[in-house]
Amino acid sequence: METKNPVIECLMNHRSFRKYKPDPIPKETIETILRAGIRAGTAGGIQPYAFIVIDDPEIMKKVSYIHGPLAIVAVVDQYRVKRYYELNDAPFYNDQAINLFISYWDATIALHNVVVAAESLGLGGVYIGMILSQDLQESLGVPEYVVPAGLVTLGYPDEEVDLNPRLPLEAVVHRNGYRIPSDEDVASWYREGDERWRDRFENEWSEERRKEFLDHGVTNRAQHWTIGHYTEEFTRNESAGVLRNLRKAGFRLAEAAEQDD
Amino acid sequence: METKNPVIECLMNHRSFRKYKPDPIPKETIETILRAGIRAGTAGGIQPYAFIVIDDPEIMKKVSYIHGPLAIVAVVDQYRVKRYYELNDAPFYNDQAINLFISYWDATIALHNVVVAAESLGLGGVYIGMILSQDLQESLGVPEYVVPAGLVTLGYPDEEVDLNPRLPLEAVVHRNGYRIPSDEDVASWYREGDERWRDRFENEWSEERRKEFLDHGVTNRAQHWTIGHYTEEFTRNESAGVLRNLRKAGFRLAEAAEQDD
Repeated sequence: METKNPVIECLMNHRSFRKYKPDPIPKETIETILRAGIRAGTAGGIQPYAFIVIDDPEIMKKVSYIHGPLAIVAVVDQYRVKRYYELNDAPFYNDQAINLFISYWDATIALHNVVVAAESLGLGGVYIGMILSQDLQESLGVPEYVVPAGLVTLGYPDEEVDLNPRLPLEAVVHRNGYRIPSDEDVASWYREGDERWRDRFENEWSEERRKEFLDHGVTNRAQHWTIGHYTEEFTRNESAGVLRNLRKAGFRLAEAAEQDD
Repeated sequence: METKNPVIECLMNHRSFRKYKPDPIPKETIETILRAGIRAGTAGGIQPYAFIVIDDPEIMKKVSYIHGPLAIVAVVDQYRVKRYYELNDAPFYNDQAINLFISYWDATIALHNVVVAAESLGLGGVYIGMILSQDLQESLGVPEYVVPAGLVTLGYPDEEVDLNPRLPLEAVVHRNGYRIPSDEDVASWYREGDERWRDRFENEWSEERRKEFLDHGVTNRAQHWTIGHYTEEFTRNESAGVLRNLRKAGFRLAEAAEQDD
């Protein structure tokens, strides 16, 4: 296929690695991936995000339940912008929804550049979403107008991992407008994963584990996710953490929402 | 340098292109970049995002003020997840902050994969942040639990563009904790851009334009951004659009924020 090249091969080859060799990552490699990170597109050259690179094992334990030689936290950083504006007698009103979401976008794609660059150099890692609910004022001393946007742990992989399945392209891609799918569409998109789950449930799980899930009303993959894993309580607690971080950082969302309309 | 390779070169070479040749993008190229997009990491295989690919010129005009042969809107898509859960008698409570932000993260990095793949194939584009405040229920018929997460226009570049400057690495990167910078640090990080702005202001701008800016209190780059460009009114209006989209889509942020604590 004419559209194959090393960049696309690298992107297509992504998988999540959670176990790493103890080997440290050379300084030049870290600098290279960070430099690739900050080349990602960013709103008007302001770069309203930051990376917090973590190689101290004690601090790693505070921010991540997966530990590698390196972790990188990406944060929305309107604090630096505010400091810059103050030095230049420029008014600051970037504590609002648009600034939060634009900065979050910039932060996640900058971190993604880091990850893609790292993978091209033989490193592997995993994104950890639970960073979003963590109090980084507590663990990393971030100031006002800074909230978590992403976390990746990185290292040289010490496990074999298969490519994770993805939904078929037509489940994700719409053309010139959103096409509401039929029940048959939705069922067919998720069928392969559902069947894989059922096979494991019936043939690989212990009788005890199977019974425990059935007792909680888990009879399929969707229920496993939403009752067994990302439970209502988990979702509510994580969300409370996200909103607490936004409020403590000084972003105005609730108030503006009430004023609006 | 041993850490150079085609992937890192591609990432380092990113620039924003706003003018495109009229040449259409071959179907196989579009399919390749979309397939690279959906290989990006995603929470638990749920893929709570979607792409809306736009090549209809009338719809392009509705969603983007920059027009190319192709535009791709990335959206948070918890609607598809809800439909899947309903089909499987699984409860849905993904209308909360953590689901919004995790899905937004997944959507932006999937779109970023598309952009990186596109750039590796000679395409160029630009991210357009104003998509976040647009009513996609109106323009693209998106259902509940779907909100905009990103927009890129793509085409074969028809302009020469220099690499945009970036802040020095030490402005963006912290180690094992957030380091509060001194005023001297902040000033020095932005100095190169500030001086470039002053040079243009003094030597390239017309007397009339200079006077207009001075009359509005714009004497430096920071004031240009915050008084001249991303004004208070603009920021407030964009933020109102973002929050309206979240509310209309059914995401609960304000309410949860009040309950919290």
